[in-house]
Amino acid sequence: MNFKNYIKPIVFVIITSCLAQKQKPSDVNYTILIHGGAGDIKKKMLTNAQEEAYSQKLEEALKIGEKHLKNGGTAVETVERVIKVLEDSPLFNAGKGAVFNHLGYQEMDASIMNGKTLQCGAVAGVTNLKNPIQGARIVMDSTKHVFLYGKRGQEFCIQKGATYADSAYFYTDKRWGQYQKAVKKNLILLDHSVGKEKKAFKKMGTVGCVVLDAYGNLAAGTSTGGLVNKKHGRIGDSPIIGAGTYANNASCAVSCTGVGEYFIRGTIARDVAAKMEYGKLNLKKSSIKILQKLIQLKGRGGFIAVDKKGNYQMQFTTKGMFRGVANSNGLLEVKMYR
Amino acid sequence: MNFKNYIKPIVFVIITSCLAQKQKPSDVNYTILIHGGAGDIKKKMLTNAQEEAYSQKLEEALKIGEKHLKNGGTAVETVERVIKVLEDSPLFNAGKGAVFNHLGYQEMDASIMNGKTLQCGAVAGVTNLKNPIQGARIVMDSTKHVFLYGKRGQEFCIQKGATYADSAYFYTDKRWGQYQKAVKKNLILLDHSVGKEKKAFKKMGTVGCVVLDAYGNLAAGTSTGGLVNKKHGRIGDSPIIGAGTYANNASCAVSCTGVGEYFIRGTIARDVAAKMEYGKLNLKKSSIKILQKLIQLKGRGGFIAVDKKGNYQMQFTTKGMFRGVANSNGLLEVKMYR
Repeated sequence: MNFKNYIKPIVFVIITSCLAQKQKPSDVNYTILIHGGAGDIKKKMLTNAQEEAYSQKLEEALKIGEKHLKNGGTAVETVERVIKVLEDSPLFNAGKGAVFNHLGYQEMDASIMNGKTLQCGAVAGVTNLKNPIQGARIVMDSTKHVFLYGKRGQEFCIQKGATYADSAYFYTDKRWGQYQKAVKKNLILLDHSVGKEKKAFKKMGTVGCVVLDAYGNLAAGTSTGGLVNKKHGRIGDSPIIGAGTYANNASCAVSCTGVGEYFIRGTIARDVAAKMEYGKLNLKKSSIKILQKLIQLKGRGGFIAVDKKGNYQMQFTTKGMFRGVANSNGLLEVKMYR
Repeated sequence: MNFKNYIKPIVFVIITSCLAQKQKPSDVNYTILIHGGAGDIKKKMLTNAQEEAYSQKLEEALKIGEKHLKNGGTAVETVERVIKVLEDSPLFNAGKGAVFNHLGYQEMDASIMNGKTLQCGAVAGVTNLKNPIQGARIVMDSTKHVFLYGKRGQEFCIQKGATYADSAYFYTDKRWGQYQKAVKKNLILLDHSVGKEKKAFKKMGTVGCVVLDAYGNLAAGTSTGGLVNKKHGRIGDSPIIGAGTYANNASCAVSCTGVGEYFIRGTIARDVAAKMEYGKLNLKKSSIKILQKLIQLKGRGGFIAVDKKGNYQMQFTTKGMFRGVANSNGLLEVKMYR
């Protein structure tokens, strides 16, 4: 019997158990932020009951995220879980609450990014994924691709384990009414100014989540039903890595909401991070600069962001943004207005 | 008769003619770069006739671009014209030469960006646009959107003036043979390692063009047929602003080619520019750093880039890249290998 034969496995066990220790959160530091869309959200626009419903749902989502993080959940897993909660609620324009496109069905986009590995996944134009963010996660983890579109992308995600939902699941009276109104208006609005068309944008409500987990890793995710009455297979910023979603342990994790075209032109999510990485600004300064850039581009919307130290930002150009933040210092805050 | 009535129009004429003067190139400085894809391009792989064909086509495209620029053409217009030349050639994997997807038809992506205004346009999954780059330009100039997908996007582009082409137009024996081979191989390869699948990537040949025009404006464009035998509505980097294409007068114009997923993860096109804007590096240093980043991500491919001073870069990780550069100093160069 040769002891040498045992040394290798023993060393291996010691190393792996050390690594496993390292992977356990020591004092469970975490920060989590969510948004449920930016727009003309003013106190007088919401009834008390509506305000209460939004508040409760945002708080519920944050608490589910916190619980998972306290139990040692990863940033990526938390982002997916929390966005699922928001997608499953009819309050937001994502998943169950997604708006109707021009053809009268929901067409959803989502993306997710792992700040540790820069792995990312996205789906766009999916109609029957109960949780588009789950589809994005599957693309990231189970394929060599980053971005899949439409029915074929969706079928592939379902093959790989994504939950199917039929169109009846997505139907809500509120969104159908919005759609009917938009279709009627559009008959008149089509040849009108951009200014008037922008009114339709004001009803957008993408959802997003960014997380710093106890292992010091960042992740970001975004999910949307896009524009009410959208046409022509339009893709916005939500499924575009660098536009609507970005995460990098070297800087920060960002999720955006607003009129997607401006976020694509400004590569807004990537820019918040790039200005930290290359411009050596802190998260706050970088966020303010990139919000200014968005305003210069005449863009409307906002974003949430968190860095490796748990610093966070919630910036927006609009009257309000459904948003919330919680961290391991006991902070738990939900806001809507300025 | 009141002279005051004439002052306004006269002032208007003077101002507009001054502006028109300003819009005319003074000494017609320009720089133009093109690529026809990166990959395992080695001298021994091409016959003399093939080498000659690629050389001639790249030179032809550059000269068409130069002619247009000398006549005061804009960067955006030049990018579109030059990419059309490459799309119309069966030599490259774009337009006429696009590869077949898994379902046996061509599915093409393209994008274009104006560095002066940050306006941009993209199409993905289009099957019957003779020149996808024309579709991208139409999205940029004639819609409020940035990114349109599939048949609906295509129909909209055709309504707005894009040229239709039936599938017979795109058929080439070479691509059909490639497709048949890939389908056969795939039956075996599907459950194989990424390493083996990568061999299919080696046949990619996206086209791209970046331009500095005589007015000091930058533009970039990219067009591709994607992967041979691609599935699931996969979208690569070519139509993604910030991944495959980016232009900003504040820094540079970039067009990428390679395995798209890595360019999305690395936001490669935007990063070449962002490292100049935020990191204050010059184009050469920025390009080298971002190529290193691509290599760290295990990405394969390359990019062309030009800045406002006419400095240019052609970087790639692969054995070769079909590429060319021309400028107003009389430079005209076409290369394929290292």
